[in-house]
Amino acid sequence: MKIIMDAMGGDASPKAQLEGAMRAVRELGIEVCLVGDSDLIMGHLDAMGETLPEGLTVQHASQVITNDEDPAFALRRKKDASIVVAANMLKNGDGDALVSTGSTGGVLCAGLLLIGRIKGVQRPALAPVYPTETGYGVLIDCGANADCKPQYLAQFGVMGSIYASAVLGKKNAKVALINNGAEEHKGSTLYKEAHQLLKQAPINFIGNIEGRDVMSGTADVVVCDGFTGNVMLKVIEGVSSTLLKNVKGAMMSSLKTKIGALLAKDAFKTLKKKMDYSEHGGALLLGTKYPVIKGHGSSDAKAVFSAIRQATKIVEADVVCKIAADIEKMEMPEA
Amino acid sequence: MKIIMDAMGGDASPKAQLEGAMRAVRELGIEVCLVGDSDLIMGHLDAMGETLPEGLTVQHASQVITNDEDPAFALRRKKDASIVVAANMLKNGDGDALVSTGSTGGVLCAGLLLIGRIKGVQRPALAPVYPTETGYGVLIDCGANADCKPQYLAQFGVMGSIYASAVLGKKNAKVALINNGAEEHKGSTLYKEAHQLLKQAPINFIGNIEGRDVMSGTADVVVCDGFTGNVMLKVIEGVSSTLLKNVKGAMMSSLKTKIGALLAKDAFKTLKKKMDYSEHGGALLLGTKYPVIKGHGSSDAKAVFSAIRQATKIVEADVVCKIAADIEKMEMPEA
Repeated sequence: MKIIMDAMGGDASPKAQLEGAMRAVRELGIEVCLVGDSDLIMGHLDAMGETLPEGLTVQHASQVITNDEDPAFALRRKKDASIVVAANMLKNGDGDALVSTGSTGGVLCAGLLLIGRIKGVQRPALAPVYPTETGYGVLIDCGANADCKPQYLAQFGVMGSIYASAVLGKKNAKVALINNGAEEHKGSTLYKEAHQLLKQAPINFIGNIEGRDVMSGTADVVVCDGFTGNVMLKVIEGVSSTLLKNVKGAMMSSLKTKIGALLAKDAFKTLKKKMDYSEHGGALLLGTKYPVIKGHGSSDAKAVFSAIRQATKIVEADVVCKIAADIEKMEMPEA
Repeated sequence: MKIIMDAMGGDASPKAQLEGAMRAVRELGIEVCLVGDSDLIMGHLDAMGETLPEGLTVQHASQVITNDEDPAFALRRKKDASIVVAANMLKNGDGDALVSTGSTGGVLCAGLLLIGRIKGVQRPALAPVYPTETGYGVLIDCGANADCKPQYLAQFGVMGSIYASAVLGKKNAKVALINNGAEEHKGSTLYKEAHQLLKQAPINFIGNIEGRDVMSGTADVVVCDGFTGNVMLKVIEGVSSTLLKNVKGAMMSSLKTKIGALLAKDAFKTLKKKMDYSEHGGALLLGTKYPVIKGHGSSDAKAVFSAIRQATKIVEADVVCKIAADIEKMEMPEA
């Protein structure tokens, strides 16, 4: 198996990508091709006093698409951007999956325009894995589609279910629709119609859940439009960070609580590890012809390694073929 | 000043409502009229060994609208429901504001259908106050309007700004639009158009904020459609509860961390108080002709007292007149 790793565009690029890829070829017994500025990559390798390990190759790409560019425009203009070179390699069969920690817009556009959709999939969607009280869940869509139609959401449910089963090992994954009430008739027009389509989809649809149940582990897959999903995911990040800051602040307020904090240090480490996004890899772009994973821009070597490992699981489980088969079964209004 | 308190429909009704109202008349020097089953209310008063304190009156209402009823239908059918009697009192000038901890649907319908909108307000919106890192913020709309038009969101910004200034003391309140990106062109069609209208509104509009900034205190007022706002608010609740549960679990994992937890107990109490929704009163229904406040269904006496105190502030600050004046200034497409 060969994973194509976009080495550029992350906060710690290409160092973190190089280190993560080195660990991946050594520990997972796979091939990885790093795509990016080869001088920079080899320079970091030299500085580490290392040579390329077996299984790791470098494909030079001279340009980078940044976060502040219009991604569709940049994709056409920068033919030698790392994400463009990487996506073309994937499309041409020179690799099994693509991982990038670069600009989200760039990754989405490369997925949609260069790699293309699975036949029948109306809109690919971005699906991160996030920690819940009882384990992990999949959120789909978290930002690929700000404006959605009901049938997109129904397809998100199908794709999310396959993904949860393949990567989280959830057989018959519980799929829920986020909503502003548990009852079937609740929600905006979009959500009311999506609910009816999800009921008919070939999945274990458990109905609506409210925001307070997203973290509880009631559902394995939470379906939403890309606008709501993006806001939700960032609210989860923001609340976690604020609360942990508040806990820390409260614990530093007196000598007694400071001693308490010292004794409870291990407890916080365990908790921090569970909440740590770098443990869970990246967000999968579901619905493209080959798997594309978007890792966090701030990924360190560990997060890059996790995202590559996640890519291998997706390839092994043949998520793409399973999606194609299930989407074909669905009768859907046209996009 | 006289506050009309719907005594029915909460989890601890009418006991919590009675106790909260008793405290309010004693500490705030106002009048409160409790509307609900007078036998039940007087029974609780007897059981407490008390009589009605000066300023507190009881208006009998024999029916209750529950959470599982269709609110618009129930409103027409149950003419003697506590929320109906209370709303009619408010409309007829027999009180300055209404507080209810009953069914959200019932309160919204009573506000819209019985009390009515301020002239020019296209859609009243539900606005709770929530804790941030630096103080408190207002979220508007958190559930009155699942389907919104851009001009509703622009009006939410104006109403939220007046509310934040009146109740939170924020002069020139910073109003932000929630979005899936900070840049002006980000978001769904609804949010792109709302952004342009908010820029022209008579408020201190600071642009888009992302989900992770909702808790940081960057904005005093966060504008969103009722679907997104409801999901966000409940995600905040859910994440807080999950995280505090996780902290607790981690602290109970060894003897050492248990001792730490014991020493740090005060720190957690402070934090819990800050995160405690019962400290912040209820959500104001903004845009109705007279102020209507929806308290949490699980409100205890303290939360009822807070909501009544909040109502007095809204009346004192003349929020309704200020909204009418500012909405009149705006040029808006028709609803």
